[in-house]
Amino acid sequence: MITGWRHPARLVVLAFLAATAAGTALLMLPMSAESGRMTGFMDALFTAASGISGTGLAVVDTGSHWSTFGEVVLLVLWQVGGFGIMTLTSVLALLVSHKLGLHLQLTVKTETNTLNLGQVRAVVAGVVAISLVVEAVGAVVLALRFWLGYGEPFGRALYSGVFHSVSSFNSVGLALYPDSLVRYATDPWVCLPIVVVAVLGGLGFPVLFELLRRRRRKRWSLHTRITVPVYLGLMAFGTLVVLVVEWGRAGTLGPFGFGDKVLVGLFHGVMFGTAGFNTVDVAQLQPATMLAGDVLMFIGGGSAGTTGGIKVTTFALLAYVLLAEVRAEPSVHVMGRRISAEVQRQAVTVALLGVGVVMAATLVLLATSSFRLDDVLFETTAAFGGVGLSSGITADLSVTGQLVVIVLMFIGRVGPITLVSALALRERRRRYELPEERPIVG
Amino acid sequence: MITGWRHPARLVVLAFLAATAAGTALLMLPMSAESGRMTGFMDALFTAASGISGTGLAVVDTGSHWSTFGEVVLLVLWQVGGFGIMTLTSVLALLVSHKLGLHLQLTVKTETNTLNLGQVRAVVAGVVAISLVVEAVGAVVLALRFWLGYGEPFGRALYSGVFHSVSSFNSVGLALYPDSLVRYATDPWVCLPIVVVAVLGGLGFPVLFELLRRRRRKRWSLHTRITVPVYLGLMAFGTLVVLVVEWGRAGTLGPFGFGDKVLVGLFHGVMFGTAGFNTVDVAQLQPATMLAGDVLMFIGGGSAGTTGGIKVTTFALLAYVLLAEVRAEPSVHVMGRRISAEVQRQAVTVALLGVGVVMAATLVLLATSSFRLDDVLFETTAAFGGVGLSSGITADLSVTGQLVVIVLMFIGRVGPITLVSALALRERRRRYELPEERPIVG
Ligand SMILES: [K+]
Ligand SMILES: [K+]
Repeated sequence: MITGWRHPARLVVLAFLAATAAGTALLMLPMSAESGRMTGFMDALFTAASGISGTGLAVVDTGSHWSTFGEVVLLVLWQVGGFGIMTLTSVLALLVSHKLGLHLQLTVKTETNTLNLGQVRAVVAGVVAISLVVEAVGAVVLALRFWLGYGEPFGRALYSGVFHSVSSFNSVGLALYPDSLVRYATDPWVCLPIVVVAVLGGLGFPVLFELLRRRRRKRWSLHTRITVPVYLGLMAFGTLVVLVVEWGRAGTLGPFGFGDKVLVGLFHGVMFGTAGFNTVDVAQLQPATMLAGDVLMFIGGGSAGTTGGIKVTTFALLAYVLLAEVRAEPSVHVMGRRISAEVQRQAVTVALLGVGVVMAATLVLLATSSFRLDDVLFETTAAFGGVGLSSGITADLSVTGQLVVIVLMFIGRVGPITLVSALALRERRRRYELPEERPIVG
Repeated sequence: MITGWRHPARLVVLAFLAATAAGTALLMLPMSAESGRMTGFMDALFTAASGISGTGLAVVDTGSHWSTFGEVVLLVLWQVGGFGIMTLTSVLALLVSHKLGLHLQLTVKTETNTLNLGQVRAVVAGVVAISLVVEAVGAVVLALRFWLGYGEPFGRALYSGVFHSVSSFNSVGLALYPDSLVRYATDPWVCLPIVVVAVLGGLGFPVLFELLRRRRRKRWSLHTRITVPVYLGLMAFGTLVVLVVEWGRAGTLGPFGFGDKVLVGLFHGVMFGTAGFNTVDVAQLQPATMLAGDVLMFIGGGSAGTTGGIKVTTFALLAYVLLAEVRAEPSVHVMGRRISAEVQRQAVTVALLGVGVVMAATLVLLATSSFRLDDVLFETTAAFGGVGLSSGITADLSVTGQLVVIVLMFIGRVGPITLVSALALRERRRRYELPEERPIVG
């Protein structure tokens, strides 16, 4: 038994800080760089933080700057970050929710805030097993394509397959090519496996676990029944915006034929909420596409998954609160279940703090640079949402700006769940009740 | 007795539509234009909607396009809009809040949704009296300055004083000069009276009424005790951002001396939350200043005042909800009073719908124009917040774009309070309670 674990949220924060420090040290080693020279502290720190948080924003070009050793360090950072975030947030979620429907024979005692060590082991084993299987399948499919379709040597194709599959599942979105995946824009055998692997990583461990265990939709937990359709709906919205806005634009979808337009549109619609690879030049996207992307990146993916953001369930709960209020219903009902006032308030808190953090960071970046709102808001929402998309300003930010982005990546990845669990696990003081008064709203 | 008035919110919407239609017809008349030719439908519609809603965004130059008759039509539209919004929203607020602390001997029967006609008359009389007195004092101060300080003929100075005072109090922000008030940027005798008149209009009728009646702060209603400090605090934040970001910029504060910088900074810090006059070229503002302005314009001013936006109390309540959650307090307490879950949910709903409407409008404007996010978001938040500031794109928007802005101005002005009162006055169906389930948040 792990007892007296009063602030498990602290563990998450400390683990991420420690891993980032170790990653920074490793990446600074001369052997990590292609040039054989030491990499500067800020570049190494940024790359490590971006890797551990699975954000994938980059200040140096991945393929050309890092040696193969450096790339393996990156892979390990991504995988540790992915395992870590899924395990730790799943454990936190277990502590918070009495019942996740995980069928892990978990009898969580939230009164004492303790988890059986066996339960934690079961989560770790589940996370590792699911991650490795999905990554392996993705890696094999990609490797076969690189080998057979592009004639790459088998070893190189396999390495590339593993690299991009791990990058996808852990929502990193860094590729071995300076233009991300633009060269594969019209190849569904590369794009679609990456989409599938990235979506699986983004759905989050609790959903994946349940999907594997229970075939019948009716028996899914509320969490899964919200996450799956809303996540897919957000991706459909993203795809639609990309297609409508970029359809005839010379810099993006214009040059492609009908089918390829749809493929690229779908790829980017999905990538806003997952890994953040790109198959067109992000700097050429229209402001409308970028704004839609901002919203999708801010929301992120499923809870206890590999993306950042406020998460799909938080967004969906806010929509349900709004719907209940507009319908003048006293309770918030979602798919035959009632949502407690406590959970509603947690969702509101996560969203408000998310907006506050992103707005404050955007204001600081704007004030300390000469970039415009389109690019800066895209950068900050990408950092908060753990999406490695950038219109290209990352490397040109000042040290202050890069530190702000690092903090945002960190907050976006561990912030919401840590916050909610820290709040939910805290004992609530009973207070005397004050008389009610009603200010005018609106 | 006005009985059976089941949907008073409808009255607000209909009154605004009718006034806009009448204003459009009057402004289209040849005699309304300086040129003596008929003004086009879209220009007249936009000007009328902007005037009635007190937004002050403009597609034609006020001073040069409209004849004196046209300007008087504008003044009447602004005044009718100001009277209308303050009266109607005060009445709605009275219907919703059992007790506003207005000491109007109001015994509102919300069960039957009826108001005594005498009560409505008292509100109308109070609104008209306060408006006319504040506007008259502002007009006299401004007229004296224009007459004595600038040597304008007495009649012209008086007309100008009335015009700008009415424009200030009703949060319109349109001036008789093509550069707004840039020529008076360093004249505190023009700027400060306008600031004071605009802030009084923005505070809202319930607050003004209470400030006049009760000298001792301890006896103020919660509404007033929230609105006054938060509104002033938001203005201080705006002033600070303008000063810090624009201090040395050649296009804005750069050319001014220390004292004038502070005056211009204060003026703009206040104007984001009120009328939206400008004393520097808005198009020259830095992106950081514009983003801070976006936030302040989105929030707007006091309830039942002459600004738009989600309103200061809505913003403050969200902050208090967040604070209570972070402190793990089961109830939301504000200054010794408890805020019901119902009111919290109304504030969340107003804010979420506000964000949704502004984001949707921004997306449409971006997709149908070639402007960038800085300018478009500034335009949409200004329209929603009823602030007449623009970086200059209003007249260049497509017809679709202008219609979107018109709808936004309308929603921003009558939306939040109408929504809340429509919700609050509706009977709530009792529903069976469903079993509770807890999705993972964050
Ligand atoms: K990513
Ligand atoms: K205005």
